[in-house]
Amino acid sequence: MKNIHQHTPREIRLFIRKGKWDKPTAGLAMGYAQANLVILPERYAFDFLLFCQKNPKPCPLLEVLEPGKFKTESMAPDADIRTDIPRYQIYRRGKLEATVKEIKNLWEKDFVTFLLGCSFSFEEAMLRARVPVRHIEENKNVPMFITQLPCNPAGIFHGPMVVSMRPLPPDKIVPAVKITSRYTSVHGAPVHIGNPSEIGIHNIKRPDFGDPVTIKKGEIPVFWACGVTPQAVVMEAKPDLCITHTPGHMFISDLLNEELSLL
Amino acid sequence: MKNIHQHTPREIRLFIRKGKWDKPTAGLAMGYAQANLVILPERYAFDFLLFCQKNPKPCPLLEVLEPGKFKTESMAPDADIRTDIPRYQIYRRGKLEATVKEIKNLWEKDFVTFLLGCSFSFEEAMLRARVPVRHIEENKNVPMFITQLPCNPAGIFHGPMVVSMRPLPPDKIVPAVKITSRYTSVHGAPVHIGNPSEIGIHNIKRPDFGDPVTIKKGEIPVFWACGVTPQAVVMEAKPDLCITHTPGHMFISDLLNEELSLL
Repeated sequence: MKNIHQHTPREIRLFIRKGKWDKPTAGLAMGYAQANLVILPERYAFDFLLFCQKNPKPCPLLEVLEPGKFKTESMAPDADIRTDIPRYQIYRRGKLEATVKEIKNLWEKDFVTFLLGCSFSFEEAMLRARVPVRHIEENKNVPMFITQLPCNPAGIFHGPMVVSMRPLPPDKIVPAVKITSRYTSVHGAPVHIGNPSEIGIHNIKRPDFGDPVTIKKGEIPVFWACGVTPQAVVMEAKPDLCITHTPGHMFISDLLNEELSLL
Repeated sequence: MKNIHQHTPREIRLFIRKGKWDKPTAGLAMGYAQANLVILPERYAFDFLLFCQKNPKPCPLLEVLEPGKFKTESMAPDADIRTDIPRYQIYRRGKLEATVKEIKNLWEKDFVTFLLGCSFSFEEAMLRARVPVRHIEENKNVPMFITQLPCNPAGIFHGPMVVSMRPLPPDKIVPAVKITSRYTSVHGAPVHIGNPSEIGIHNIKRPDFGDPVTIKKGEIPVFWACGVTPQAVVMEAKPDLCITHTPGHMFISDLLNEELSLL
């Protein structure tokens, strides 16, 4: 295997399918969109689809497969959703039951697959425009916080919005808003700029998920809706069964990030 | 009643509710978003919601109500979907059965209401920026055409995209693309610019719906996805029952068009 970073999305999916890669996917297949995964039995699918429609910033839908389908139509037609994600989480009644490397043996013909946008896409665009991305500079996971901003409920699904935080010097805020506004299908523009306590975050140094990052003197914390929201909401709603990716272990698609910005 | 054009969206909805206005709504409550209506029994709702998700240009969702609900949450909280649209079409198995002024007596507790964006919103923005809108100049309905561009199918729903056409002088095409790109929730940027036959339109002087308009020497026809698409698709899919607005007789919301452009 040559350096994993030199491979195409298809080649990386094949490594994953064969069990040769089960680590996080950040930095792989640069330029290509990665996606969050949620799989639910069909009886929950309308409620969850409606939830995503009502909460496009935390839950930006890139593709929804028809019941039973495990092949995508647009994101990566040769991919198999049951095997091509490095790690899956199995939730039963809202509790994490297991983390597995494939879900072929669990597959049911009423499963509906949702693929949701991921902030990796806009972080690449920020870096290209010299907007600093602190957790990348510090080689950490992005800090994520559970807020007091409520999601719009739909059917059984409800809960608070989870956000990611990137600290920025004041002169980089406008460029960051402009850049991320172009990427509505991967969380879009920030949901909050400035004082963390206004959205119910009491200690910016203690994220609920991911790692704390340095906030330099004069920098402002900027908050974006986060793809962990749907997982948090699914855990709250406690459906009989839900399968997601393991955070950071994303689905790598054939879509270019630039194509997403033109949707 | 003072001149209808001076009334607020709420006042106009009350006139409509009382049966005092059952004409087209173009030009009413300028500045406020109007919406297309589709109501389906719950058994079709997932398929139709998925269809809209897969076809955001012709079917841009502004709000979807939970099964049985006839009050909107965000678009106009005091409105009643059963009475506040000037005219409704009742389709059974894809055939237009009746046109009525209210649907209270038809309402069932499994009805799911979809409100979809309407091009009136971006036409206002075009006029403000001195981009000509020919059918408004000529006091006609916009010309609409059934194309050979297929919609992405979902469940029982499938069919061709319907487009609206606005002829533009070459120097107005870039401004028109820029303006309508800002309004993704009301059909967004054009789907085609130029030769009509490339998308299966054989006679630009004979639209399938609406009125023909003058195309001046040197002008280019520009095509946008159209809100008639979902009605055409519903007629093709032949669900047992579907209720829509009568074309041109829209739902008038409390949302400003400018708010839509910021979604």
